[in-house]
Amino acid sequence: MPHTTPAATIGVVGGGQLARMLGEAAGPLGVEVVVSDPTPDCPAAPVVRDQVVGDFDDRAAIRELAERADVLTFEIELADPDAMERVSEATDTPVHPDPDTLRTIQDKLVQNRALADAGIPVPAFRGVDTAAELRAAGEELGWPLMLKARTGGYDGRGNFPIENPDDAEAAIAETGPAVVEELVDFERELAVIGVKGAGERSSASDRTGSDNADEMRAFPVTETVHEAEILRELVTPARTAPAVRERAREVSLEVLETLDGRGVYGIELFELNDGEILVNEIAPRPHNSGHWTIEGAHSSQFEQHARAVLGWPLGSAERRAPSVTTNVLGDVEDPQPAELSGVEAVLEAPAASLHWYGKREVRPLRKMGHVTLSDAELDAETLLERARELRDGLTFT
Amino acid sequence: MPHTTPAATIGVVGGGQLARMLGEAAGPLGVEVVVSDPTPDCPAAPVVRDQVVGDFDDRAAIRELAERADVLTFEIELADPDAMERVSEATDTPVHPDPDTLRTIQDKLVQNRALADAGIPVPAFRGVDTAAELRAAGEELGWPLMLKARTGGYDGRGNFPIENPDDAEAAIAETGPAVVEELVDFERELAVIGVKGAGERSSASDRTGSDNADEMRAFPVTETVHEAEILRELVTPARTAPAVRERAREVSLEVLETLDGRGVYGIELFELNDGEILVNEIAPRPHNSGHWTIEGAHSSQFEQHARAVLGWPLGSAERRAPSVTTNVLGDVEDPQPAELSGVEAVLEAPAASLHWYGKREVRPLRKMGHVTLSDAELDAETLLERARELRDGLTFT
Repeated sequence: MPHTTPAATIGVVGGGQLARMLGEAAGPLGVEVVVSDPTPDCPAAPVVRDQVVGDFDDRAAIRELAERADVLTFEIELADPDAMERVSEATDTPVHPDPDTLRTIQDKLVQNRALADAGIPVPAFRGVDTAAELRAAGEELGWPLMLKARTGGYDGRGNFPIENPDDAEAAIAETGPAVVEELVDFERELAVIGVKGAGERSSASDRTGSDNADEMRAFPVTETVHEAEILRELVTPARTAPAVRERAREVSLEVLETLDGRGVYGIELFELNDGEILVNEIAPRPHNSGHWTIEGAHSSQFEQHARAVLGWPLGSAERRAPSVTTNVLGDVEDPQPAELSGVEAVLEAPAASLHWYGKREVRPLRKMGHVTLSDAELDAETLLERARELRDGLTFT
Repeated sequence: MPHTTPAATIGVVGGGQLARMLGEAAGPLGVEVVVSDPTPDCPAAPVVRDQVVGDFDDRAAIRELAERADVLTFEIELADPDAMERVSEATDTPVHPDPDTLRTIQDKLVQNRALADAGIPVPAFRGVDTAAELRAAGEELGWPLMLKARTGGYDGRGNFPIENPDDAEAAIAETGPAVVEELVDFERELAVIGVKGAGERSSASDRTGSDNADEMRAFPVTETVHEAEILRELVTPARTAPAVRERAREVSLEVLETLDGRGVYGIELFELNDGEILVNEIAPRPHNSGHWTIEGAHSSQFEQHARAVLGWPLGSAERRAPSVTTNVLGDVEDPQPAELSGVEAVLEAPAASLHWYGKREVRPLRKMGHVTLSDAELDAETLLERARELRDGLTFT
């Protein structure tokens, strides 16, 4: 793996903020990034080598990416695994993570089954296609329940808590084929960013195999604070018992074992009242719950993803300092041009780092940026207080 | 200063590694960068919005930059202050730092005089145009001496130590009009990255003034290790007495006072045997001696430069952790395609961060990249040892 120029290039299906931050992390490594995205001048465009305009399943666009890249990856679950697989075969460009992993994760029922089959603790669940099946599942699992569309949901969209059998008809009409889960009475939500790398065997030369991902690392456990199903805040270290953090890490490494292909995975967890851990969902890509790693760890989740998909050695996933991240969400009622006020206070705050995704339009609850506070001399509680103060001062005008 | 999209844009004359790292720092802020450089696909190109191809004094290229940018700046002393000034007037785009500051710094004799006139401690010096004047200066200042070309030198090029009057003729033939300085018998070399910002008065609206730069910050004092006049290593904190560091900081702030225009300045210093500080040279731009700040400080010198030239609030210049940087220089005898081996060990080292500038060709002593080790739990001496080991394992093949 000598460093040659022109540099190694990663082709990314999707050009949103995750691709943008991947580009920001790739630059220092001398790695170039090309993205494909349906929106011209997508968020990643200003900081990467180039954007190909094309839908997430546009085979011609993905082929253009592949021809310019050493490896293909994706930053969004809407990426089309079939298209990536075909292009990969046609151009002899590897895809990481494995399109099969993406297929599994795209369908929440298949995902849950795969985890359960591997002995990973997940909430009790059933697949349901009709209101009758949903009511029957409610008899077994008890009410209330969480109904999730099998495909297409993200950021809590597609998820519906339902109180009783009377709501079954209306709910299933919203979701279509779904998975229904017991409504977990959790103490808090946690997340772990896991990384699968090539391991020593392949770091020397082999860039093509997807079955030799044998180096695994996990970042420290983060506490994720949601509101109305949307991720709002990250607190690292998670404010829970060391034994719980250890168990969360253990479960996450078990999850990683079940996934094929190199790269970063976001693993969302429930901590139950007795300290037990259940796996909620998996994202086969860098994840919002790992944004704190940019300042808070030695190698961020984005740098790790770049290293992993290229088959390079992974970096240290150790924490540098207690870190809190708060999302900047669109607190607007209707779409409007993005103009944020209150930024000065963030820029002036001692340990604060602003991340602005460059989206032109703010929409209700759209992820527009985030702010991380990371400081070895402060504890997470203090950082959280300051982060909230800063966030509360940001408004779209 | 609301955050609007399209984002604020910085136009940078010069597209080398400093512009590249400026681009890498600007991305998270939502700030875009456009560079001009004579070499197509310059090092900054893959990570910034766009490159305009043009010489450092190409007025049309600079004008194109200005028309796309909110502010102009430069990353190289070869930038033409006259061209930038004219374009600035014609397009009503401010330039920071002030072109006058660049003019002063481009001429080492003018620079030394300006510092001496302001009461800043500098080595004893004389302007010399001829061998006779050089010999006369030697009578006054004593031999040996350091002869420096008044203009065009960088990275130690254009600097010649001369032993005795017999060498005067040959030396002045090399330099042309020069400044000659006493050869300082220093204990070590230090450097401080200073930042001049807009201060509170202008952060609200005024982006144009160059005379209201009234907020000043200085990063912690770094020790710079040179070999054959080329910067090799940075050690922060500098391994010297606290009182010396304090004095270095004080002198640096005095230097900053004398400079016009917002931005980052690299201030190179000598620490004499008695702990006194002399100013060696000033760079009106981010500087190699500040590369440790990317991992080692809360806001890097590049982020500070972006903030400063835009008139935004400055960030914290506090140190996050002891940090050591080692340059990766071209250890080759002739130019050849850049292919580096030994990178794996850097990628695997726990607190190490690789910065590769993406230059296609390695040349003797060319700056190709750097490696920083930053770790709150290790001291600078340990980091330096590890950094040297890693660097010694890197070779161009």
